[in-house]
Amino acid sequence: MDAKVIILLIWGLLLNVYCYAQQTKNPKDQKPNFIFIVADDLGYGDLGFTGSHQIKTPNIDRLAYEGTSFTNGYVSSPVCSPSRAGFLTGRNQVSFGHDNNIDGSQLGFDPDFLGLPLSEKTIADRLKPMGYICGLVGKWHLGDKPQFHPLKRGFDEFWGYTGGGHNYFNSEPDGEGYLSPIECNYKSPAPITYLTDDKGKECVDFIRRHKNEPFFLFASFNAPHSPMQATEKDLALFSHIKDEKRRIYCAMVHRLDINVGRIIEAIKEEGLAENTLIAFISDNGGPRGNASVNAPFNGQKGILLEGGVRVPFILNWKGVVPSGKIYAHPVTSLDFAPTFVETAGGRVSKEDKMDGVNLIPYINGEKLGVPHQELKWRFTISAAIRDGDWKLVRLPDRLPMLYNLKNDISEQQNVALKNIEITRDLLKKLGKWDVEQPHPVFLEGAIWKGLQLEEYDKDYLLVQPK
Amino acid sequence: MDAKVIILLIWGLLLNVYCYAQQTKNPKDQKPNFIFIVADDLGYGDLGFTGSHQIKTPNIDRLAYEGTSFTNGYVSSPVCSPSRAGFLTGRNQVSFGHDNNIDGSQLGFDPDFLGLPLSEKTIADRLKPMGYICGLVGKWHLGDKPQFHPLKRGFDEFWGYTGGGHNYFNSEPDGEGYLSPIECNYKSPAPITYLTDDKGKECVDFIRRHKNEPFFLFASFNAPHSPMQATEKDLALFSHIKDEKRRIYCAMVHRLDINVGRIIEAIKEEGLAENTLIAFISDNGGPRGNASVNAPFNGQKGILLEGGVRVPFILNWKGVVPSGKIYAHPVTSLDFAPTFVETAGGRVSKEDKMDGVNLIPYINGEKLGVPHQELKWRFTISAAIRDGDWKLVRLPDRLPMLYNLKNDISEQQNVALKNIEITRDLLKKLGKWDVEQPHPVFLEGAIWKGLQLEEYDKDYLLVQPK
Amino acid sequence: MDAKVIILLIWGLLLNVYCYAQQTKNPKDQKPNFIFIVADDLGYGDLGFTGSHQIKTPNIDRLAYEGTSFTNGYVSSPVCSPSRAGFLTGRNQVSFGHDNNIDGSQLGFDPDFLGLPLSEKTIADRLKPMGYICGLVGKWHLGDKPQFHPLKRGFDEFWGYTGGGHNYFNSEPDGEGYLSPIECNYKSPAPITYLTDDKGKECVDFIRRHKNEPFFLFASFNAPHSPMQATEKDLALFSHIKDEKRRIYCAMVHRLDINVGRIIEAIKEEGLAENTLIAFISDNGGPRGNASVNAPFNGQKGILLEGGVRVPFILNWKGVVPSGKIYAHPVTSLDFAPTFVETAGGRVSKEDKMDGVNLIPYINGEKLGVPHQELKWRFTISAAIRDGDWKLVRLPDRLPMLYNLKNDISEQQNVALKNIEITRDLLKKLGKWDVEQPHPVFLEGAIWKGLQLEEYDKDYLLVQPK
Repeated sequence: MDAKVIILLIWGLLLNVYCYAQQTKNPKDQKPNFIFIVADDLGYGDLGFTGSHQIKTPNIDRLAYEGTSFTNGYVSSPVCSPSRAGFLTGRNQVSFGHDNNIDGSQLGFDPDFLGLPLSEKTIADRLKPMGYICGLVGKWHLGDKPQFHPLKRGFDEFWGYTGGGHNYFNSEPDGEGYLSPIECNYKSPAPITYLTDDKGKECVDFIRRHKNEPFFLFASFNAPHSPMQATEKDLALFSHIKDEKRRIYCAMVHRLDINVGRIIEAIKEEGLAENTLIAFISDNGGPRGNASVNAPFNGQKGILLEGGVRVPFILNWKGVVPSGKIYAHPVTSLDFAPTFVETAGGRVSKEDKMDGVNLIPYINGEKLGVPHQELKWRFTISAAIRDGDWKLVRLPDRLPMLYNLKNDISEQQNVALKNIEITRDLLKKLGKWDVEQPHPVFLEGAIWKGLQLEEYDKDYLLVQPK
Repeated sequence: MDAKVIILLIWGLLLNVYCYAQQTKNPKDQKPNFIFIVADDLGYGDLGFTGSHQIKTPNIDRLAYEGTSFTNGYVSSPVCSPSRAGFLTGRNQVSFGHDNNIDGSQLGFDPDFLGLPLSEKTIADRLKPMGYICGLVGKWHLGDKPQFHPLKRGFDEFWGYTGGGHNYFNSEPDGEGYLSPIECNYKSPAPITYLTDDKGKECVDFIRRHKNEPFFLFASFNAPHSPMQATEKDLALFSHIKDEKRRIYCAMVHRLDINVGRIIEAIKEEGLAENTLIAFISDNGGPRGNASVNAPFNGQKGILLEGGVRVPFILNWKGVVPSGKIYAHPVTSLDFAPTFVETAGGRVSKEDKMDGVNLIPYINGEKLGVPHQELKWRFTISAAIRDGDWKLVRLPDRLPMLYNLKNDISEQQNVALKNIEITRDLLKKLGKWDVEQPHPVFLEGAIWKGLQLEEYDKDYLLVQPK
Repeated sequence: MDAKVIILLIWGLLLNVYCYAQQTKNPKDQKPNFIFIVADDLGYGDLGFTGSHQIKTPNIDRLAYEGTSFTNGYVSSPVCSPSRAGFLTGRNQVSFGHDNNIDGSQLGFDPDFLGLPLSEKTIADRLKPMGYICGLVGKWHLGDKPQFHPLKRGFDEFWGYTGGGHNYFNSEPDGEGYLSPIECNYKSPAPITYLTDDKGKECVDFIRRHKNEPFFLFASFNAPHSPMQATEKDLALFSHIKDEKRRIYCAMVHRLDINVGRIIEAIKEEGLAENTLIAFISDNGGPRGNASVNAPFNGQKGILLEGGVRVPFILNWKGVVPSGKIYAHPVTSLDFAPTFVETAGGRVSKEDKMDGVNLIPYINGEKLGVPHQELKWRFTISAAIRDGDWKLVRLPDRLPMLYNLKNDISEQQNVALKNIEITRDLLKKLGKWDVEQPHPVFLEGAIWKGLQLEEYDKDYLLVQPK
């Protein structure tokens, strides 16, 4: 055999391998991709599809209109870190003691336990052994110590920061909090331009680099969480809004929408739309502090009225998730983990102790009934239960609050005394569940608990500002 | 002096020493022995003398009929480890924070404190300096770390395991839990045949080896605690019982009785009966899980209804403890420690802070009055008090439960609302005592607390099955 | 230049420096000195100016009569260590978890946190950078570990002991508790004669040594705290009192007064009276155990009735603090820290989170209104609020107790049920504040909590014994 023949044989072999490889990468046969886009402290009513008159969000709206949007979509906590601990594990975070934001103020508490307990598996931990490449772009907020680092919790790639927030503009990194330098394990990160844009760019980059393998991308934006910072160009679009903070807020949400659009566009361009499930939520309701609007819901971030825990909630997957559908039964962010894992072909067993369920069969009509007859929350001194249309909130300084969400979506009429039996039943259910939960691992900051009570007594904007 | 004379002199000397030794070993002059036989998760009604129609227990019955049996005998906790912490110290275990089963699930809790607090003295710690040889055969369940080991807590001999249970048949030891190898500090332990028999044999061996010195033997059986395992031969005796678990349970209790018989027989054979106080209890009520029957009592292991804390309770000592007597005033397993210590000639002082009292003077009629006007329990979220015939149980999810045990031994009629003053008084007494107790050292497993509440709502067998 | 000229020049130079120094030491220009005299477990009614018929305290009375005395002066805790944590920081100690006396009995608690949290600044920490020399004579009780030592908490000089009490007479030091040797960082301490006299002597010594610089002297007496020990000479003055403990108590208070007199005298002799602010309080109410009298107040040390927290309270500063004034609006020991700091020319900012306020402008009439509309207490299982003339005490074993102090200074009539709205409002205010506070750092001893409840049910002497 002369050299030419050998070369041809090798060439043929390589060609075969390539074609085979191409074939296996054919979207139709490949495991689906997951993109989980999370906004931070976004007001429920501050998107086009949830009713905003002030902010246009055509890209997020497109996700909603071309996918299924959920009008009763909840997060499992009204604040960031526990909400993330919940949705990344599929388990109500209080069931493993992650009730609170990371808080090392309790003297004598071992800081080695300040993070998502190592007993828990993230979505990335579950998808990785199934052949997925898992990337996190943005905010982590589940522990700063090395043992809690995203690269130790199933993620292959990380571009972001481990804390709870970050400056939007480039500033001298000081290693502390919002000015910590961007970390990245796959390249030397470029200086920040405007953080939301930089995250969008990294997400697109992730998609393009991994288009040929199944991937899970956690696009963890921190817009519109404080600090309130927007570009001059974006601010100009909202110059008609008098309140400065609201103006900045609108510009920040606008920029978030632009970057969600970039992600959608990259998926389309790479021909991955039919093979990619995109989810969108906010990690909790909007706080008063960033001028967000949770209309028509009462309350805000940090409390258990609907404004604190009901969030924009979208699933989008061309050809699989019903397009233009509005799903009204209660669902929870804890459903994402089992939805992703089972959609990827994995199995969620009883041993996984997930509180969420796979939503796909419900929205496709394969499964009858409701995903959740009851949802429960515990946050420091407060607890709440939703059972069908009834919602009960329990606080230590007042009688129980009972609302019928069917008639009273804004939780204006406490009907506890008119419905004593329902109140008693829900209190007992909630109480039993509460005592079943473990003691919180790390304790909440103190002053917050009292301030929290005050937030129930404030007046909130229940209709959209024009 | 020639060699013969020297030999004779030495012989005479040895003879004198021997006779002197014999003399001091004369039972009449010797300190009494104590054998403390503890069954594990035994249903109140599952012995002959407590009313079983299904299980014959002639040996345990003999202990009861030839000794004094207590119809109102309680343990200080409805679960294993705290109950043992109580009766081995004579102190209500919540007074030193041992409220719960050993549980290291609380993140950040130092496992070096997972056991019977080192501040506490066991019965063995107290008897040893009085010249007793102290042996433990069987289950420990008061800490796995070296500092909590029985040989560090007053015992001279240990044949058993430090955990909460063990397989009954021989199996490949894996060093973990119920398959851990048997530990023994005085010989190389033989392979397990059937654990209850092996324990009986070791108890007899202990008695024979130490018959000439005062001894304390803690015969810590784990029958009929799960795993549900019995020999074919014993199962054949109960082939008429349809329910498989109940059949196994009966066989396990039968085998326990056989081995209690072996212990009694050894005592007789060695001529020690008149010098040995034998006590018998179960460490808590029977759980539903092992098909036990607590009739006529309501409830089960883990809760504070009578079925969880009232147990078969016997003292037997030929010629000292009244024979055939039934003692009806409330007594508690906390009474064993002071009973043994004072019977051995020791003194229990105020500084010992024991909650138990020496029962002997009460059953002999030397002391008038009742050993305990009040008994109190605290277990995780529940607490209870017995004051005379009244029993009050306090739970976090319902109104107080008040029973009059005189008329309602099965706790069927909550008469709290009909006896407001008594309810208020008992709640105040119980509440005061509760706040006086220290914080639990190690915290209970979480899910258990809610499940526990449910156990109050179940229906229990209040009459003996035929 | 010959040597003589040089010497003259140097002499002149030194003279200039001296004169300049003298000038800057001129009281008129110098920062004022602070002497903070604290009695320990002193009964409210056991001083001349607070009504005692049995004990004459001309020196303390002189402080009161020549200064301003406060008839509604409170401490922030009814026991020693937290009260001291409060007044030395100006912050209600529960806001940093120092709720309890130093107690290391909680198993697993890291003893490195058994002391005034290192996050907190003492009065000495604040005055020292302003040029003050800070001295502590006597009892510390804010932590025994090196990191909590007074010399680490702003004090330059320490003559005393770190524990909660001390023997009054010389005894063989054993390094433990009340027999620990006296520590001193500036000389080798002489043997104890009678502790109260020794402290007085050290205070006078401190004043004389530092008269030329601004100073802060914390004169931390432990009279009349137990052990009950007095000199024969002093006891002879009270030989007409039959009750031995009361006789000793009176002698101890008498000796305290003598030594307060020595301090006042030293200040006068050194010409510092017009430049020295002297404050006097007790760290909490008198306990029953030392035979103290809190008349006309009900209750005692350790509980939140007035007898536990309202104390003799004096400010004295010749020419600045009004002489002979009686100030009746509620003030608190938390006011001393801001009073001293601002009087020294410092500024207390919001970031300091002090609960106290500078009292000088209020007593001088510069500021209108009241220093505190509300005062709140939390101590283990109890909490209380004073709002104007209303006082509400909340206990876990009974209904809320509401008193109108205007009509009922001895808290004899619980008017809660007659004033439901006020009760509800105060409970809500108190409850909100309570939940805002952090978890206590170190936990209280257990038995104390129940005993504490009993102290509310005792009868107290509400009128002065003759």
